[in-house]
Amino acid sequence: MPTNTQILFQSKLADCAKKISAELETLLNEKTLEREIARPAKLTSAMRHGALNGGKRIRPFLVMETASLFGIKADDALRTATALECVHCYSLIHDDLPAMDDDDLRRGQPTVHKKWNEATAILAGDSLLTLAFDILADPKTHKDANIRSELVLQLARASGVGGMAGGQMFDLEAEATTLDEEAIKILQAMKTGALLRYACEAGAILGGANMQQRAALVKFGQLIGQAFQLADDILDVTSTQSEMGKKVAKDQGAGKGTLVALYGLDKAQHIADDLTAQAISTLEPFGDKADILKATAEFVVGRKS
Amino acid sequence: MPTNTQILFQSKLADCAKKISAELETLLNEKTLEREIARPAKLTSAMRHGALNGGKRIRPFLVMETASLFGIKADDALRTATALECVHCYSLIHDDLPAMDDDDLRRGQPTVHKKWNEATAILAGDSLLTLAFDILADPKTHKDANIRSELVLQLARASGVGGMAGGQMFDLEAEATTLDEEAIKILQAMKTGALLRYACEAGAILGGANMQQRAALVKFGQLIGQAFQLADDILDVTSTQSEMGKKVAKDQGAGKGTLVALYGLDKAQHIADDLTAQAISTLEPFGDKADILKATAEFVVGRKS
Repeated sequence: MPTNTQILFQSKLADCAKKISAELETLLNEKTLEREIARPAKLTSAMRHGALNGGKRIRPFLVMETASLFGIKADDALRTATALECVHCYSLIHDDLPAMDDDDLRRGQPTVHKKWNEATAILAGDSLLTLAFDILADPKTHKDANIRSELVLQLARASGVGGMAGGQMFDLEAEATTLDEEAIKILQAMKTGALLRYACEAGAILGGANMQQRAALVKFGQLIGQAFQLADDILDVTSTQSEMGKKVAKDQGAGKGTLVALYGLDKAQHIADDLTAQAISTLEPFGDKADILKATAEFVVGRKS
Repeated sequence: MPTNTQILFQSKLADCAKKISAELETLLNEKTLEREIARPAKLTSAMRHGALNGGKRIRPFLVMETASLFGIKADDALRTATALECVHCYSLIHDDLPAMDDDDLRRGQPTVHKKWNEATAILAGDSLLTLAFDILADPKTHKDANIRSELVLQLARASGVGGMAGGQMFDLEAEATTLDEEAIKILQAMKTGALLRYACEAGAILGGANMQQRAALVKFGQLIGQAFQLADDILDVTSTQSEMGKKVAKDQGAGKGTLVALYGLDKAQHIADDLTAQAISTLEPFGDKADILKATAEFVVGRKS
């Protein structure tokens, strides 16, 4: 039996996904903004295909829920949350390319390069990444330029050479080598963890958190990032293709070391649960207001797809 | 005989190129910044190869020179200029990919995907693009967050779906269709023009220009963008591979319509000269202070590579 908090969490998560899709629909049309010259219809279509694919929108949800700890309404965190989702979707489009992970399917749909071609997929990813910074820097996102600028800076740090993109580079190199536990943890903290960490830090930035509050939320983001990745690696071993909507057991096939291969399934599950408990404990200073975030941490490690 | 202004221009352009390379050397090493986790050595090497390739650094030079109209020192415009160059270099790396223009050589050197592989080139481009926004949003670039935020916003507009990336999409589509004059102009204003326009607008933003001054510099950037592209198309027909350090007569080979094909060489050169004269006239309000910028406009249309 799900608890009331879990039921509320599911309803809020579904509501967030709807809002994000609606915001992406608004942003990814052919209407040009000031200083834009024209938008190629093919490119906006490819961006929409890559971004409007029915994801769970966990990252935007974390932005909204961490911001709500400081009394920020969901609608006032929506543009920041959408910008982050643009970066996530760009990374999926590029990661799916033949030169990278070479995936034909994403959530049961053809990937962007399969539906169009590689050039279009590269440009759609590039444009979604660029759009993310456009959204954050626009005064519509927040009236205080210090906050907009800080949102941009931290998103860039989380996404670039020392974050997500660097993590994908390590991941590609991992196919040719055997990584030890420390190297796997660094790779995962970058490839998956950095954006989840940013999601929680962005809420803190929007909310005007003090340094301790912000540090707690960054820590929460890091811990659920680790739990999320362990859950992903566990699902890669235990799930079926129809549940996941994409190829499974890929990591084993590619010879990639994962913590699941290193620890075994049982220990991996135990560590994931432990990370979740640690994550929840970092939220204690926020009291009951953080109940939905705690449920999010439990969801992240308990999900089936 | 070159004039004193032309000699000064050449010396300042060379000085700018040195500063930009030095700044890129500083930024593109393996030292992590706050919130970064680790930087893969292979990825930083690929980014350096793509960025430290001896370009003329015209875009950064325009940032510095337009900023200098308002008394901003070159060193105080350096980070903004470098951020723009990161975007230019990312675009070259991605445009050279087999799925795009498929070039093996860039300024006489192997392109990033030839020296490493496609995945590394995609990630190096992604990371340079991301780094550009990191640089601009960092308080080191300017103490006023309003200025940082505006620099980010306008760079995103110039680079994304309604600017440079959209222009590359139109350019790829142009291989299969015959574009009319208007469509070619839109394509070029996006693919090449938008970043040159941004270069001049960025100087205005850094300098705290009033609306009329900013509009004049945006117009100057647009006009030299058009002249630059015409000069490029003329060089594609008249230059040799050894002068250009890359393949020439590519546009004809790819069946792409250019304004040179439409107008003929003589008329194209005449229009390029006329655009340069118009560009120079937009600088009249700035008086003698704009002499170097005027020489830049003449250089852009008169260059041999």
